[in-house]
Amino acid sequence: MGHGLCHRTIHRHQQHLKWSKANAPVLTINSGETLTFDALDGSNGQITKSSSVDALDTFDVNLADPAYGPVYINDAAPGDVLKVEILSLELADWGWTAIMPDFGFLADEFPDPVLKIWDIDPSLPYVKFKDGIHIRKRPFLGIMGVAPGEEGEFSTIPPLETGGNLDCRYLTVGSTLYLPVRTPGALFSCGDGHTAQGDGEICGTAIETTLTATLRFTVCKNQPWVTAPQYQTPPLRELLSQEDVDEDKGEYAAMGIDSDLREASRKAARNLIEWLVSTKDLTRDEAYMLASVAGNLKMVEVVDMPNYAVAMSIPLNLFV
Amino acid sequence: MGHGLCHRTIHRHQQHLKWSKANAPVLTINSGETLTFDALDGSNGQITKSSSVDALDTFDVNLADPAYGPVYINDAAPGDVLKVEILSLELADWGWTAIMPDFGFLADEFPDPVLKIWDIDPSLPYVKFKDGIHIRKRPFLGIMGVAPGEEGEFSTIPPLETGGNLDCRYLTVGSTLYLPVRTPGALFSCGDGHTAQGDGEICGTAIETTLTATLRFTVCKNQPWVTAPQYQTPPLRELLSQEDVDEDKGEYAAMGIDSDLREASRKAARNLIEWLVSTKDLTRDEAYMLASVAGNLKMVEVVDMPNYAVAMSIPLNLFV
Repeated sequence: MGHGLCHRTIHRHQQHLKWSKANAPVLTINSGETLTFDALDGSNGQITKSSSVDALDTFDVNLADPAYGPVYINDAAPGDVLKVEILSLELADWGWTAIMPDFGFLADEFPDPVLKIWDIDPSLPYVKFKDGIHIRKRPFLGIMGVAPGEEGEFSTIPPLETGGNLDCRYLTVGSTLYLPVRTPGALFSCGDGHTAQGDGEICGTAIETTLTATLRFTVCKNQPWVTAPQYQTPPLRELLSQEDVDEDKGEYAAMGIDSDLREASRKAARNLIEWLVSTKDLTRDEAYMLASVAGNLKMVEVVDMPNYAVAMSIPLNLFV
Repeated sequence: MGHGLCHRTIHRHQQHLKWSKANAPVLTINSGETLTFDALDGSNGQITKSSSVDALDTFDVNLADPAYGPVYINDAAPGDVLKVEILSLELADWGWTAIMPDFGFLADEFPDPVLKIWDIDPSLPYVKFKDGIHIRKRPFLGIMGVAPGEEGEFSTIPPLETGGNLDCRYLTVGSTLYLPVRTPGALFSCGDGHTAQGDGEICGTAIETTLTATLRFTVCKNQPWVTAPQYQTPPLRELLSQEDVDEDKGEYAAMGIDSDLREASRKAARNLIEWLVSTKDLTRDEAYMLASVAGNLKMVEVVDMPNYAVAMSIPLNLFV
């Protein structure tokens, strides 16, 4: 805490489980300042490195997805945008992925709890799913948001138009998030560290981990046309897929076709899982988790009615 | 038609406007053979290089999206998969994009017809949207499919689980499409050339163009677990986004948050359009078309209920 760079820190106990503009700020800063957040994982410490699947039996969802803050940014007012630059993300040495009963995009088809604990070796650019399957680290905060403008308390689990649990894998180091300010001071909070995740996060969990994040905050005055989160990424080759640019092997995708967009998406997910089981010697549970942490759900066409076409893809260089 | 490579051709008159297993094949080939398709654009010649927007007034949707074929592939039987390798795609020297009344993902917000005619210069790797906005050519066939197993006739406009109007931009040269065979001989047809398109094709049209496609067909026996189209791409850096790898500038994205997946997607599209209008000196119609031909709709999270998060992104190196 000497002169020069003074990174103030938001600590693990400075958390909240509801979004509310009535939450008292834990810190006040000026536009342009940088802060560090020491954020427990999305289980809020309920799952540990030595947990077995039994931990899911006693898992209290009311404690999940804590947000660290809120931080009051001077001069931020409704109608402004809060610019959040993601400067660094330091991962813990372990993480977890779970299939939780009644949670996830195919919850009805995966009723049984599964817990996987990952080793996160700081000396490697990837984590190992199992022999022959490596997933590159692309860390990000699942939760970054500001307080909603409405009165009342809102769960931190669903994302809101003021951000929150966006679970957006593009928000890694070098990206910038823009959030619409709805209350004086913005009241920013973040949490829910992820080591890697695919578009969609289909099983409901990423590679969940405790992490330390350093973010810079800037108030952009009067941008009322920003009504939901927006973001900008650095060059896509660093981000867009799990590949190492030098080892890019393309991707494999399974499509889902249906007159309902959600059902088309579920079919695409199911069909990719089936392909993983059929060709990669994975169990169905493993395939569901792998598709969640490394597969990408995207809309191929949304206009040729009555049927939507959705693809779920997986980068082929996962398979080493 | 000498010895050696013998590329047989399906011609422009060999088209059909309904999928049906009762359609008579125009050609029979063996597994492993290569064919060339000379395919008119999705308007079926109703829009020409000199058309004005008035052409949309008399546009007959019953003539749209012709499929060229069908081709009977010997030994293909229900339960097999037809592997289609995309070997070459040669574009015409012009294309079109339209906003058509009552068609498109935001049809209710864009009631007026708009027609844009594009120059496609074979000596350039991109087409020009307007001064300062270049879109790289990433050609593909919007329609590739086999006959459905059900009796009856089905429009070529919606995609089916046997393929058809998938409008999947990943199916460019070097990619391979896998289609579930549902009737003896598979009865493959294709058409609807596109010079470029984003994920979603939100305004309802891509850069529509006449093209000549060369495809190789292989029957893969007994893969009953393939119940909808699947595909494999070459290295993603060639395909996944519109960027030239050397000029990758990242992407900008606007998100949509809603408890309905389709509505979240519509919000993301609308928010990106608003950003393009606000920052890139485009009209709303221009922004809608640009998002359709170069923007990408993807699911960020589909599990943090009750709200979905969808992003519509655009590569920043379009802006030169």
